[in-house]
Amino acid sequence: MSRSQSVEERLVGLADVVVEAAKRKRDPEIEIPVRALSNVEFNERRRIIEMKDATQARTFFNLGMAKKFMQTMLVADALAELQRAECTTSLREIYYRTKHTLAESSENTFDAQDESDPIIEDLEVTLATLREELNVAAEGRGSVVGNIVIVDDGDAIDCTKAGKSGHTVPSICEEPDIRIQKCGADFVLLVEKATQFNRLSEDKFWKRHNCVLVTGNGQPPRGVRRLCRRIHDECRKPVLVLVDNDPWGYYIYSVVKQGSINLAFESQRMAIPDAKFVGLSSRDPEKHKLPRNVGIKLNDKDIGRAKEIMAYPWFAKKEWQAEIRHMLASGLKYELDALANKDFRYLTTHYLPRKLKDKDWLD
Amino acid sequence: MSRSQSVEERLVGLADVVVEAAKRKRDPEIEIPVRALSNVEFNERRRIIEMKDATQARTFFNLGMAKKFMQTMLVADALAELQRAECTTSLREIYYRTKHTLAESSENTFDAQDESDPIIEDLEVTLATLREELNVAAEGRGSVVGNIVIVDDGDAIDCTKAGKSGHTVPSICEEPDIRIQKCGADFVLLVEKATQFNRLSEDKFWKRHNCVLVTGNGQPPRGVRRLCRRIHDECRKPVLVLVDNDPWGYYIYSVVKQGSINLAFESQRMAIPDAKFVGLSSRDPEKHKLPRNVGIKLNDKDIGRAKEIMAYPWFAKKEWQAEIRHMLASGLKYELDALANKDFRYLTTHYLPRKLKDKDWLD
Repeated sequence: MSRSQSVEERLVGLADVVVEAAKRKRDPEIEIPVRALSNVEFNERRRIIEMKDATQARTFFNLGMAKKFMQTMLVADALAELQRAECTTSLREIYYRTKHTLAESSENTFDAQDESDPIIEDLEVTLATLREELNVAAEGRGSVVGNIVIVDDGDAIDCTKAGKSGHTVPSICEEPDIRIQKCGADFVLLVEKATQFNRLSEDKFWKRHNCVLVTGNGQPPRGVRRLCRRIHDECRKPVLVLVDNDPWGYYIYSVVKQGSINLAFESQRMAIPDAKFVGLSSRDPEKHKLPRNVGIKLNDKDIGRAKEIMAYPWFAKKEWQAEIRHMLASGLKYELDALANKDFRYLTTHYLPRKLKDKDWLD
Repeated sequence: MSRSQSVEERLVGLADVVVEAAKRKRDPEIEIPVRALSNVEFNERRRIIEMKDATQARTFFNLGMAKKFMQTMLVADALAELQRAECTTSLREIYYRTKHTLAESSENTFDAQDESDPIIEDLEVTLATLREELNVAAEGRGSVVGNIVIVDDGDAIDCTKAGKSGHTVPSICEEPDIRIQKCGADFVLLVEKATQFNRLSEDKFWKRHNCVLVTGNGQPPRGVRRLCRRIHDECRKPVLVLVDNDPWGYYIYSVVKQGSINLAFESQRMAIPDAKFVGLSSRDPEKHKLPRNVGIKLNDKDIGRAKEIMAYPWFAKKEWQAEIRHMLASGLKYELDALANKDFRYLTTHYLPRKLKDKDWLD
């Protein structure tokens, strides 16, 4: 489908496929890109995880596919309604909206949300639209403070005047509802956890180091990733990522940087290939003389995951191989919270200033 | 301990106990209120869950208590440091800050966070301070929009101009950092889930119905409860609670209203005995002609929990007994999201306006 059509036109186009087929007395058929590891690759030049070209036909006159075809049309219809109503909703509400019992039967269109969610993903890739453009919000929100003015639904939010706790990062962070009016910061610091965001915000770190602080309260939700990407693209600001030193921290960073395998289709609008990993690095505990007793022993799951990550082509650089190998050799992982062992403000007063001064990060 | 002393004085007072005992060559001893179901009661007059008076001595010259006594002093010391530094932190960072290996041994002061968390709770009740006054933030944040001006760390946030996504509700919502400058709303609507908050905020429900919308993205975190309580107390605004129709929804409402059994000590500063339950009620699916197929079958856990809740004295009113009995009889629970089955905006345009018009809520 072409991106020059409106989202509603693209959705209605699916209904046209059925109408056309009916007129010609043919089996209606739609081609859906395959969402599987086999159809994903790392684009070395663009440095993002991308979908390849494989597609699969979904047809109506096929016992194995008829129900899914019907479900696809129902979801597309609900999504078109959402476009016309100009409102946004959640995956769960799409499930409820499209659920009904077929007349004179006890058969439901959908029995559980795990039937409607993958159809929404099918439609995303088939219609070349982001979930956000379909007006479907993902769960999870974040917060932002610092040197940026964001227009949210007509209100200009000056994030230098948004208190300690900051403005809520919308689940859907797209034009025209959300605009970046101005960003005078030198960089964006995306902080994994709320504790460190609170620390830095309370200490007005963004003022002294002229930056924007963003958190997603854990694995950054889509709205947070999209906001960082937009600041990076529209305002040309570097994005630094601050996570725990464990395989999950590495993974969070890699999703921010080149996208995820599951949602490879979205990398082109979510990934930030220039993002830098500012820590915790497995070298930091020594550099900062953290006692070994605040490290946490790697368990078998951690070790397995670390080895998996080492094998991803986007972690192939020798600096990254050394980083992960060093963690494995130490047998320990460290949370950002462990820096509090030195002093409650160590992150603000020592750790990050030294990182920034030395440009001590991984790419 | 007296609330007229500063928090730091109260913390230092614990060290004085040890110094005094040492001077007199006595065993140092502190009296700690018992945090257990046996020491909790529902105060019918005040309509909150309260702690009773039982205490337990914690002494140092006792093999079974010596380590815990030492840990209590270490945590109190870290909390006093936090007061002097005028900064806030998390439970997890307190654990890291107080963890060290005892000299010439392999014994750690703390081996895991589940050793330091209960000590912080002990100190809360012993010193008659809220966790927030100890500068320890709980996890979880929420969002707020609507007719209220909140001063957050010196910045006045006009929540009628906070976009769709709103201002982040701080984890710690206490004076002097957080102040309510003005609240022109008629009531506060505390919404359990982000999806419905988004719906109402996007539709500017707060404008048409002159209210403040708050969400905690699930079980409301302490900051959200405290903000609602403060709006209720300081500005005399009713608080309406909107949750799913299931035992967990009832429970969330009851925690907002009269506090929780686990943290009974905090009810006096967190609970809102006048809060009203605005839905979903087990009568709503019929009133609003929701199809039975968007209900979810109650499982054994739901049924057990519902019966437990029916037995709580704060659910003893006949209206509540009827409400819960009706849910059990129907065999179904309903999520707020199920209202989308009618129409994506049903909550904004039909459900809530009718509730407000009919004053159709439970107390």
